[in-house]
Amino acid sequence: MSGKRLQVGIIGAGRIGKVHASTVAFSLPQAKIVAITDLNQDAAAELAERCDIPSVAPSAEALLADPKVEAVLICSSTDTHARLIGEAARAGKHIFCEKPIAHDLANIDTALQAVAKSGVKLQIGFNRRFDANFARVRKAVATGEVGTPRLLHIVSRDPFPPPIAFVKKSGGMFLDMTIHDFDMARFLLGEEVEEIFVAGGVMVDPGVGAEGDLDTAVIVLRFRSGAIGTIDNCRQAAYGYDQRVEILGSLGKIATENLFPNEATVSTGTEIRRDLPLNFFMDRYRESFAAEMRAFVEAVIQNHPVPVSGEDARAPVVMGLAARKSFDECRPVRLGEIADGPTKH
Amino acid sequence: MSGKRLQVGIIGAGRIGKVHASTVAFSLPQAKIVAITDLNQDAAAELAERCDIPSVAPSAEALLADPKVEAVLICSSTDTHARLIGEAARAGKHIFCEKPIAHDLANIDTALQAVAKSGVKLQIGFNRRFDANFARVRKAVATGEVGTPRLLHIVSRDPFPPPIAFVKKSGGMFLDMTIHDFDMARFLLGEEVEEIFVAGGVMVDPGVGAEGDLDTAVIVLRFRSGAIGTIDNCRQAAYGYDQRVEILGSLGKIATENLFPNEATVSTGTEIRRDLPLNFFMDRYRESFAAEMRAFVEAVIQNHPVPVSGEDARAPVVMGLAARKSFDECRPVRLGEIADGPTKH
Amino acid sequence: MSGKRLQVGIIGAGRIGKVHASTVAFSLPQAKIVAITDLNQDAAAELAERCDIPSVAPSAEALLADPKVEAVLICSSTDTHARLIGEAARAGKHIFCEKPIAHDLANIDTALQAVAKSGVKLQIGFNRRFDANFARVRKAVATGEVGTPRLLHIVSRDPFPPPIAFVKKSGGMFLDMTIHDFDMARFLLGEEVEEIFVAGGVMVDPGVGAEGDLDTAVIVLRFRSGAIGTIDNCRQAAYGYDQRVEILGSLGKIATENLFPNEATVSTGTEIRRDLPLNFFMDRYRESFAAEMRAFVEAVIQNHPVPVSGEDARAPVVMGLAARKSFDECRPVRLGEIADGPTKH
Amino acid sequence: MSGKRLQVGIIGAGRIGKVHASTVAFSLPQAKIVAITDLNQDAAAELAERCDIPSVAPSAEALLADPKVEAVLICSSTDTHARLIGEAARAGKHIFCEKPIAHDLANIDTALQAVAKSGVKLQIGFNRRFDANFARVRKAVATGEVGTPRLLHIVSRDPFPPPIAFVKKSGGMFLDMTIHDFDMARFLLGEEVEEIFVAGGVMVDPGVGAEGDLDTAVIVLRFRSGAIGTIDNCRQAAYGYDQRVEILGSLGKIATENLFPNEATVSTGTEIRRDLPLNFFMDRYRESFAAEMRAFVEAVIQNHPVPVSGEDARAPVVMGLAARKSFDECRPVRLGEIADGPTKH
Repeated sequence: MSGKRLQVGIIGAGRIGKVHASTVAFSLPQAKIVAITDLNQDAAAELAERCDIPSVAPSAEALLADPKVEAVLICSSTDTHARLIGEAARAGKHIFCEKPIAHDLANIDTALQAVAKSGVKLQIGFNRRFDANFARVRKAVATGEVGTPRLLHIVSRDPFPPPIAFVKKSGGMFLDMTIHDFDMARFLLGEEVEEIFVAGGVMVDPGVGAEGDLDTAVIVLRFRSGAIGTIDNCRQAAYGYDQRVEILGSLGKIATENLFPNEATVSTGTEIRRDLPLNFFMDRYRESFAAEMRAFVEAVIQNHPVPVSGEDARAPVVMGLAARKSFDECRPVRLGEIADGPTKH
Repeated sequence: MSGKRLQVGIIGAGRIGKVHASTVAFSLPQAKIVAITDLNQDAAAELAERCDIPSVAPSAEALLADPKVEAVLICSSTDTHARLIGEAARAGKHIFCEKPIAHDLANIDTALQAVAKSGVKLQIGFNRRFDANFARVRKAVATGEVGTPRLLHIVSRDPFPPPIAFVKKSGGMFLDMTIHDFDMARFLLGEEVEEIFVAGGVMVDPGVGAEGDLDTAVIVLRFRSGAIGTIDNCRQAAYGYDQRVEILGSLGKIATENLFPNEATVSTGTEIRRDLPLNFFMDRYRESFAAEMRAFVEAVIQNHPVPVSGEDARAPVVMGLAARKSFDECRPVRLGEIADGPTKH
Repeated sequence: MSGKRLQVGIIGAGRIGKVHASTVAFSLPQAKIVAITDLNQDAAAELAERCDIPSVAPSAEALLADPKVEAVLICSSTDTHARLIGEAARAGKHIFCEKPIAHDLANIDTALQAVAKSGVKLQIGFNRRFDANFARVRKAVATGEVGTPRLLHIVSRDPFPPPIAFVKKSGGMFLDMTIHDFDMARFLLGEEVEEIFVAGGVMVDPGVGAEGDLDTAVIVLRFRSGAIGTIDNCRQAAYGYDQRVEILGSLGKIATENLFPNEATVSTGTEIRRDLPLNFFMDRYRESFAAEMRAFVEAVIQNHPVPVSGEDARAPVVMGLAARKSFDECRPVRLGEIADGPTKH
Repeated sequence: MSGKRLQVGIIGAGRIGKVHASTVAFSLPQAKIVAITDLNQDAAAELAERCDIPSVAPSAEALLADPKVEAVLICSSTDTHARLIGEAARAGKHIFCEKPIAHDLANIDTALQAVAKSGVKLQIGFNRRFDANFARVRKAVATGEVGTPRLLHIVSRDPFPPPIAFVKKSGGMFLDMTIHDFDMARFLLGEEVEEIFVAGGVMVDPGVGAEGDLDTAVIVLRFRSGAIGTIDNCRQAAYGYDQRVEILGSLGKIATENLFPNEATVSTGTEIRRDLPLNFFMDRYRESFAAEMRAFVEAVIQNHPVPVSGEDARAPVVMGLAARKSFDECRPVRLGEIADGPTKH
């Protein structure tokens, strides 16, 4: 049976590389990791031992040159994504790449063109689409359970602000954090956004403001259908990771709650309480990481379209750039104002 | 229009008398209080002023002799209920009486015989039947929404244990506190209990044990249909008044939650919490007191059967006596073992 | 004791007039209704009988001329509010007036000047401030329980769109429906809004659009402190009246749920379900109507400031005008752009 | 590193054998499966391939004779448990055995004696102790968060009744289904039960009654401390698998809810609903199966006491026998009436 397994190579043995390596090694009988690499060769070697990966490649280039590798998981830092996608495409490897491809459209478009030319598959790591809650909401919209969407509200708040060193190279809150919510908005309603307005500020950490970034914002989205969405972002929620959505449609609404470590409620002489929600994105979205990887492997093996395409990687970046422009200019910004707009590459 | 109003007299100006007086005076246009009395004449006078009651009678006997009084609300102490029911019945007054009629069957039966002979209406103050939660559960059973009942679970816990002085004359926990739950069990399933088993003890206040009473118990009920019920009683719940039921039927279950002063939830760095439930039975059951009074007045005016009959007063006392016997003898007790049983008067 | 009661006159025996009449007549021992009037004299007479009101005045002017009347409740149609406030103030009567005073600032300012000149008290009928849920949220903000507010989200959706005949004279959604939410935003955060941006449309009833109004909108509020609020409005929610708020502060969040007719949950072979929330604003806000009236009567009797002032009537109208301007011009609008702004009369 | 891994053999490649094999193969780096066997050799071979198990033993005896095997997981049918425990103990293998060891105390005691004599570790598969909900409840009791326990209520209902063929050899509902709840009762309160009373019947499937078994019951437990517990069992709940507990203590209560496939709520024109809970015990308790296996492997490797001992296997069987006796004789039964009682082997 191992002869039929998809032969996977992994570039990057950091936090997310470990997650995907474990999934492929232990939960995906249809795939097999044949090689791994990382700038930190010790990290690569350690992960190789833990997951029984037979080869540690000396570089991404070497891994991509390995004929055994049929598909590659790009889990390296964001600034390498666009280049590695191009190289992998030219090497004829199917590609799973973490989001975002790049912080600018030119690099994204170059990468997507290489993919288009080579005909390999490219799936982007918008894992939240595979979360049971958000998938249930998408299903309610797609099946008409709540009718035609009118209003969408996404709450997306982190437990802690990132370190300033990270903020410096993050691309800004819209491209680092909100990008997931931009993808969620498109995914849940199944349509494109036309216009964005932002009201935001620095409410958590003045250091973030010193870097020219913001840490709290409301982003208003106008969809093509006329539906209106809001994204409610904050880099810090005292009670932990807050990830919810609500959609009002013509026939009703669907709303989700956070996930918790347990369903126990304690009633005392002063209050009724429960424990805080799952606080770390690795816990909160654990199953979604496994599910997106399963979907990628199946799409490659069965030669089906991937569920999160290259276009799905580009559109949220356009939205992020529009959001920043709206914030800078204090006015609603149409996506068409950003470069060539979200749909033309 | 006032000519058509039911002319009501009230015996007892204590806590529950005040509740019923306010309801009739301010929320029931179909009725009018024409007289009130209390052993404490000052209390009666004060309530009369507050509710615009034109006459303060010097005694219950005087009030019952007043030809203007068409119906009487007996809100005096339990030890007077049976006698006053008899006197009111002989005076031809319709009767609303607080529960229980008496702690022994002989007095209850004498009172019920007087009522039967006179043909007046008698409604018993099992107000919880009129609570929106429990009425909704009854509806689910009566309409078949959850199918044939199999298991019933009643949670009924007080916020604080009563003072020992009250315990002494209360008739014991089963006749004072559980009696409401016995009524609820019969009401919700719409059928009689055949057998009772009790496991209980003194867990809250040793003083209660010194009086020969108990303060915590599980009471198992076997209904005629074979369905099984449990009542979970405690004289003290640190978090307040706990009043819930759950029924498992062949097609599903229905369960209720407590009522709260607000629906706000606070999430902090340590927990997610809400305020404690309504803690005092006067708050928790406020609307049910008004609803039972409205039902009584309507039943009298329209000459319909009352929703809580004399038999509904007797059966829970039989159950309470059986529960005590089970506790004393550590065995299941059939209701037929108690006096003449619950259905033969 | 009746000698000390506040003598109240009521102008308007319609829906809200009936609510306030019942409250004063049956739940407020400190007050007494001495006169009522309505253009529809039959309606006034009928309500007078139901609530034992001794006098039906032939006109508002006659009622205001009645020396027995110490305070007046203005429950007539909106287009009469400003004029009647002026007349009542000149007659030296304390005033409770339903919201809004008028749809334009000139009339509001004239009315408020008359009040200021006469020195009578004026309370505006923003009843939702007295709702237990929203009062709890205000308390959490005021006491610092959730820290410094960062984000506010108000959901306010009606069960059904109003008839077009009503829409024509409503002043538009922002002045008719959102005005409550504008008041709530100011009340909950205890500060003023500086700038408003609206994204809205006609999603429920094209007839509303034909009148130049909208029926669905997201309104973004920027507060002076920098906090950001969103109001999520729709004239129709299939599941009923939806009235919730959520505040994220530096120490946590507080969020409220709707109110329901019961707390029962039914589990069947296909789903877990509960009954729909209280659907009619008269049910949902029943207790808040009584509480605001109690507060008004107490403020007059004890000569305390009223809890909802004339300025609280003016500011939401400024916000509504700014919202409309933002919608028309597709840009954020500062409140200072509206006439003299919200704080200068 | 593989040299330090605990070498595990598995007896039984059925449903639960597959679960444990997957856990050890893919989630437990500290252990390694070296052999597997099953009466159905094809099933064993298939599982071996899926989990990369190097050896398929022809029999349990052969597997136990394999010197590479350090610990054995007994996942075969219940009637083989006692014998295989004895053989494994004599072969010096540490043992993880599914519950129950046997339906009679003689066989259990013989097995436990063999374990005691050999000094190997024996852990019993009461996986629910490792469920996050029940572990949280245990923690609340152990730390005093809810004070001294007074009342315990366990709800344990299956989605569907078992086939009659299974009922015939199940040992009866008390030893097959309630046995988990008996263990949970002991685990949560951390003390022994002294007396049991059962009220039960056949309400789901008359075929169950024809086999002399019952399918619905309330079991009342009296603990040594005086605390009282109830177990609410039904072989069928239309809405699915229902697994909850509630404890009332002197300082408060703790209660758990079921687990759901998602946290989405849909509000429509007729109801507010959510999807049914996780319906299959393999889904509901998935993480607890992995956690118990992890605990076993760690206990063996670190030579710590196992968290679920042989005594924990015996006591629930005594409780099950007492429950049956109570049901047959319609009276409370003390555990001391059963053979040698729960604590003397």
